[in-house]
Amino acid sequence: MLAEIITIGDELLYGQAIDTNSVYLGERLTSLGIEVKYKSTVGDDVKLIVDGITLAMKRSDLVITTGGLGPTPDDVSKKAICDHFGRKLVLYEDILRKVESWYAKKGVEMPAIVRSQALLPEGTKPLSNDWGTAPGIFIEVKGKLFFALPGVPIEMERIFDSGIVPILKDRIPGGKVTAFRKIRTAGISEARLHEKLSSLLEETGDIGIAFLPTSSGVDLRLTIKSNSPTEARRKLDRFEKRIREKVDRHIYGTAEESLEKAVGDLLRRKKLTVAVAESCTGGLLGKTITNISGSSDYFLGGVISYSDELKMKLLGVPDEVLESEGAVSEKCALSMAEGVKKLTGADYGISITGIAGPTGGTVDKPVGLVYIGIAGDKGSSARKYVFTKERNFNRELSAQTALNLLRLELTQS
Amino acid sequence: MLAEIITIGDELLYGQAIDTNSVYLGERLTSLGIEVKYKSTVGDDVKLIVDGITLAMKRSDLVITTGGLGPTPDDVSKKAICDHFGRKLVLYEDILRKVESWYAKKGVEMPAIVRSQALLPEGTKPLSNDWGTAPGIFIEVKGKLFFALPGVPIEMERIFDSGIVPILKDRIPGGKVTAFRKIRTAGISEARLHEKLSSLLEETGDIGIAFLPTSSGVDLRLTIKSNSPTEARRKLDRFEKRIREKVDRHIYGTAEESLEKAVGDLLRRKKLTVAVAESCTGGLLGKTITNISGSSDYFLGGVISYSDELKMKLLGVPDEVLESEGAVSEKCALSMAEGVKKLTGADYGISITGIAGPTGGTVDKPVGLVYIGIAGDKGSSARKYVFTKERNFNRELSAQTALNLLRLELTQS
Repeated sequence: MLAEIITIGDELLYGQAIDTNSVYLGERLTSLGIEVKYKSTVGDDVKLIVDGITLAMKRSDLVITTGGLGPTPDDVSKKAICDHFGRKLVLYEDILRKVESWYAKKGVEMPAIVRSQALLPEGTKPLSNDWGTAPGIFIEVKGKLFFALPGVPIEMERIFDSGIVPILKDRIPGGKVTAFRKIRTAGISEARLHEKLSSLLEETGDIGIAFLPTSSGVDLRLTIKSNSPTEARRKLDRFEKRIREKVDRHIYGTAEESLEKAVGDLLRRKKLTVAVAESCTGGLLGKTITNISGSSDYFLGGVISYSDELKMKLLGVPDEVLESEGAVSEKCALSMAEGVKKLTGADYGISITGIAGPTGGTVDKPVGLVYIGIAGDKGSSARKYVFTKERNFNRELSAQTALNLLRLELTQS
Repeated sequence: MLAEIITIGDELLYGQAIDTNSVYLGERLTSLGIEVKYKSTVGDDVKLIVDGITLAMKRSDLVITTGGLGPTPDDVSKKAICDHFGRKLVLYEDILRKVESWYAKKGVEMPAIVRSQALLPEGTKPLSNDWGTAPGIFIEVKGKLFFALPGVPIEMERIFDSGIVPILKDRIPGGKVTAFRKIRTAGISEARLHEKLSSLLEETGDIGIAFLPTSSGVDLRLTIKSNSPTEARRKLDRFEKRIREKVDRHIYGTAEESLEKAVGDLLRRKKLTVAVAESCTGGLLGKTITNISGSSDYFLGGVISYSDELKMKLLGVPDEVLESEGAVSEKCALSMAEGVKKLTGADYGISITGIAGPTGGTVDKPVGLVYIGIAGDKGSSARKYVFTKERNFNRELSAQTALNLLRLELTQS
């Protein structure tokens, strides 16, 4: 089954938006064993969209478009779909009722223009959208599958997962399957990881291996084409085991498991709690920990001590530390971690204080200098890091490194 | 002059890499007044690349490909270019010497495979690459321009700027320029915004207008083709003024200005400070405010009160409120905002408490229910929202909505 993706929107041609939708779709389709052969982008122009759909339906078995399903006049995808398939728009009463109740639930009056969301090309099987008002569109013609999805990423992703995947799973033919495995590491550089695995890399057999840096660390992506999912899994299992023999301590998860999920699982299993004291990250560490639903089992909260006053008042950082060593120092990080542990009664207090940049750096304390502290029942420690020159990357690296320090602490104790 | 971009690489189809090259090219070409009409992606497959180039050279005046120029066997773009144009590869001695000296300067032995970088389709005008070993390729046929660039973003960008822009500037027909303006709104839905602007939309003249939803709100993108930049600016100014007459209160910025930047500027100008009390967002609001370098001028910090204990202990939320109304309630949001204002001494306290989901919802308090409180010197208030079913989207919407409430408070007072 050959698949093709068409993303629709002037903003994608003019360089005003990055297309992440086709990245999501490409990854998901590939992992389902469906080959994505073409990808194209067209502007908000009925004729060009029709041309794009016509070419795609000719050369591919499965076509997915994203974008242009909204209620405003620049959204013209439905018009183009009608033109290509020779259909007209008809009112779907059940969709209209759903959209109306969507507004009713919010207690907001429905603008008249939104009614058009319930107009779909005749013969469409609508795909339910619980995250917005535009339903997905499914049309099947002569064994070929056509789907149109809204451009808002969250809506696009959810409709794909809940509405399209079940349809595709029914129709995927047997044969060679491509299997992937992602092994996620933290606290080790790409080059060092490569070095530690070098003997293995010479005998990968039919397994392809790629090193993919992320903000948490480095992912290893294993790829194999195999006769059956079972055979693929067995080979990948065997190879993963050999990787783990070399670098197990650095591996925090597989697939899409995040570092915050791995840390959360450890905390829950050990029935321990954590609290945060954040300066330069401004709340990012707490935000990251609470990405996980159910994190209230182990996350109590904490203090965003952006100002020195709050570091003293809430966390008990001594005046002298701030005066002699400054807020970006090992002692301050230690004191913040101990302070938030005491304040909240958590088993662990984690602190982050640093110079995120781009301003605020000096010769002694350059942009990218960050101290991360951990206070536990057996004592506390703080470590120094020098990250990059880029503010948001520094903040992301700080939060991820703090999580990895806690992970190592939890796996050792 | 109509332009078309072709990005080449399996990784772009399989969702293993985000295509930022075409974003760069789209933005640069558009700002040069060249219309980008098509964009497509093909895998590392000679026949498909040839098909892509053939279609593009037929329908466009200017075609740029990126990727597939490297020395390894999966790089097949040069083969495809030869096939399409009916040329053979010939050795460019000066390129070979340049590549050799590139390695000599690094003090590294040149791998034999790299020699192939000096083989280019016959008749190519090479475009100098000072950032890597693959030169860009320029071929002109019957007044149509074809360029091939390496896929490494930094090399692609530099060759485009230094090698291609001068060629294009020579050939851009005088006259029409395309100008854009982005006007950013918050606190109003796409449909409602459309309704409020409906009378204007009937008399946009030569200005195109698009509605682009973001996590902060809805952006309006104005586009105009004009005889000069000055004329374009004047017309856009005039139209923006008319938009502002209708929805000024909802506009927080233009171009790439973020909501947190707009709020920060207001606070700094008014010499006011803010602190946050976050429950379901876990620190996201603080993190967002501190995206802005220099936010310590107005952001003191705050409390992440994920547990009820911290809501009581640090923010002084009364036991009775939590017991009778629950943590997700108007009274709790009010009390949190007032509590953090008092605790930190900030001019404004902002609070967020809600059910982010996917678990934790009930009939009375469904997933997506969020209360946002603001406490200032003139009093405090809290508002109820029902967002979506998706955890991270709910958290993002909560933080953005809280920022917009503060913005409205600051612009009214």
